[in-house]
Amino acid sequence: MIVQKYKDMLQGKSVIRQLSEFAVARGQEIGYENVFDFSLGNPSVPVPQEFTDVMIKMLQEKNPMELHGYSQSLGIPSVRDKVAASLNKRFGMNYTGNHIFMTTGAAGAIAHAVRCVAEPGDEVLTFAPYFPEYAPYINLTGAVLKVVPADTENFQINFEAFEEMLTEKVAAVLINTPNNPSGMVYSLETVKELARIMEEKQKQYGHDIFLISDEPYREIVFAGVDAPYPSAFYDNSLSCYSFSKSLSLPGERIGYVAVNPKCTDAEIISVMCSQISRGTGHNCPPSIIQLAVAEVLDLTSDLSVYETNMNILYRELTELGFECVRPGGTFYMFPKSPEPDAVAFAEKAKKYDLILVPSDSFGVKGYFRIAYCIDTEKVERSLEAFRRLVKENY
Amino acid sequence: MIVQKYKDMLQGKSVIRQLSEFAVARGQEIGYENVFDFSLGNPSVPVPQEFTDVMIKMLQEKNPMELHGYSQSLGIPSVRDKVAASLNKRFGMNYTGNHIFMTTGAAGAIAHAVRCVAEPGDEVLTFAPYFPEYAPYINLTGAVLKVVPADTENFQINFEAFEEMLTEKVAAVLINTPNNPSGMVYSLETVKELARIMEEKQKQYGHDIFLISDEPYREIVFAGVDAPYPSAFYDNSLSCYSFSKSLSLPGERIGYVAVNPKCTDAEIISVMCSQISRGTGHNCPPSIIQLAVAEVLDLTSDLSVYETNMNILYRELTELGFECVRPGGTFYMFPKSPEPDAVAFAEKAKKYDLILVPSDSFGVKGYFRIAYCIDTEKVERSLEAFRRLVKENY
Repeated sequence: MIVQKYKDMLQGKSVIRQLSEFAVARGQEIGYENVFDFSLGNPSVPVPQEFTDVMIKMLQEKNPMELHGYSQSLGIPSVRDKVAASLNKRFGMNYTGNHIFMTTGAAGAIAHAVRCVAEPGDEVLTFAPYFPEYAPYINLTGAVLKVVPADTENFQINFEAFEEMLTEKVAAVLINTPNNPSGMVYSLETVKELARIMEEKQKQYGHDIFLISDEPYREIVFAGVDAPYPSAFYDNSLSCYSFSKSLSLPGERIGYVAVNPKCTDAEIISVMCSQISRGTGHNCPPSIIQLAVAEVLDLTSDLSVYETNMNILYRELTELGFECVRPGGTFYMFPKSPEPDAVAFAEKAKKYDLILVPSDSFGVKGYFRIAYCIDTEKVERSLEAFRRLVKENY
Repeated sequence: MIVQKYKDMLQGKSVIRQLSEFAVARGQEIGYENVFDFSLGNPSVPVPQEFTDVMIKMLQEKNPMELHGYSQSLGIPSVRDKVAASLNKRFGMNYTGNHIFMTTGAAGAIAHAVRCVAEPGDEVLTFAPYFPEYAPYINLTGAVLKVVPADTENFQINFEAFEEMLTEKVAAVLINTPNNPSGMVYSLETVKELARIMEEKQKQYGHDIFLISDEPYREIVFAGVDAPYPSAFYDNSLSCYSFSKSLSLPGERIGYVAVNPKCTDAEIISVMCSQISRGTGHNCPPSIIQLAVAEVLDLTSDLSVYETNMNILYRELTELGFECVRPGGTFYMFPKSPEPDAVAFAEKAKKYDLILVPSDSFGVKGYFRIAYCIDTEKVERSLEAFRRLVKENY
């Protein structure tokens, strides 16, 4: 019979999707160029030409049997080796190819990482504000997502609440830095304190507590900001990556889990992931996409537009009186709503064709997210709409 | 803590993989061209040139933002429409794009289909001989795979055993025609009788029993063989497809679930699959691969080599006295072992550099599988080894 659990999930519709659909519908009325659609986290700059060139070269020159042949479910060995080498060079780690499990993006990475370290019923902690998809990602594995309340001062970590919630039932802690939706990057101090508390609790409880670090925005960090690599500070750590944002390839769904060589059972976790994969039907990502990203590991799209947009919006919004912590990376910012009800605020903003996402679905009330991964020209045109929104309502 | 269930799975090593590794090691001694490696079901003919041309054209001409942009987790709408149209034309069905859920190959398709229709604890029946991966595919969803004993007469269906095992606990029946490992195609009579019994039991128990039809070999059917499309004969059916074999793209992991428009909740099953996907981390397949296969839906690789190889081997082996049902499709055949212990037989065969897979892991004893997806020239050279094997041992 049709399984009711999944049928029930069809009832809810994400706020972000509703807003995005509104933006598209409004665009059909007044021209999409006149809708200031800040709803979606879609990269707005093209993939580096090198990626396209590598793909074409492989298609033209490689033996198709080899190029499209079966690959190991762990990923192609040469690709795993190259990912390890690139991470080692950049972050001073000691990964080998054996510590890398190639995945269909960050969702695939998290699905496997959580299944490796959390039994059904175990708790996984994350921190508000958080990416709302974490709830189905975690809960559908059988583990239970619990959300630590936000540090609304700096959008770092509310350590008091964290220590209280880090009980014996917790199998893993899921972090996301640089953060969607706040745009904040965890400081060295934050990462060290997080590691210290987790190590202390591991000893106290006598079992491993894993750090699962979701890092799709790792490459989008702004000038002057130090973005520590979390796995360098905590041994039981699994780093989950996606090339979606750094290479502007969200539709190609390619990423990996990097298993800290110092973690418990480090040598077998990637092989465990390939066992998990048999049940999830994940398979490994397509050979050609694996081989292509392996050739451009140290490149990114031209990500500078995001910092340009951030600076323009940050200056204007703070001048207009919005309270906002200055983002350290990503293509999001997360100002305080000028009225306590962020949903009501976002409704008002729609009248000025400003599509903003109220913070409620990110696990904190009274803020809104601006996804400024759009053309700078449009960001500049949006400023007048923000001014009118404030002047006529607050 | 590290989850023991997946750690335990690392103990077992598949017989097929062991044999394949033996073949590679032996190849390093005597040259791989001298090892008659019939162990692996890897396509041996290249992808059609049209696929390569379409990929290159898209990379050269399409806007990269559009080409590599986020796609819906259900799959790209235009691709789903084209898949539906192609199936309708070929099999007289009435699919629309809404009935198609794009997946990372047949494993992804089965993982989603089973989760749609079987609760943890429910039984899923399949028929020996069967693809050994069905066990982890099904059991890791929480459902329980049960295997109906083989009809060793014709490798169709042992209906007596089937009726007995089709109890109220059964949520789904998983079939695979054309079949790995037997090479047999279910006849019209078989498919009709299967449907009749399932319909009868549905009525008797008052609940749906789904037919999950795994069809990666659908396009490899030999001259004179009628291969009925199972979903045309049973309403509650989900057809699971992979392009791996028909287009020789096993590494690119692309396929789909096609939901019978007449089945219960037909209009929402693909959307349920996209909810399931949030928990499995499946995502949809890469945009570029979806778009490329959609342009070559009605093409296949040159599959004629498989029939050529089958005819050569079937003639020689039956002349040598092997009992064998003549395959109707795939690139497998499944002769009876000349001694009851097929493992002992396969060991003897290795001495003649014949790499054959004993049938035990396919759920039936006393047979062996020949995967003849290799060059015809090598098949011909293998005949002398078969002759010596028989002459010197039996």
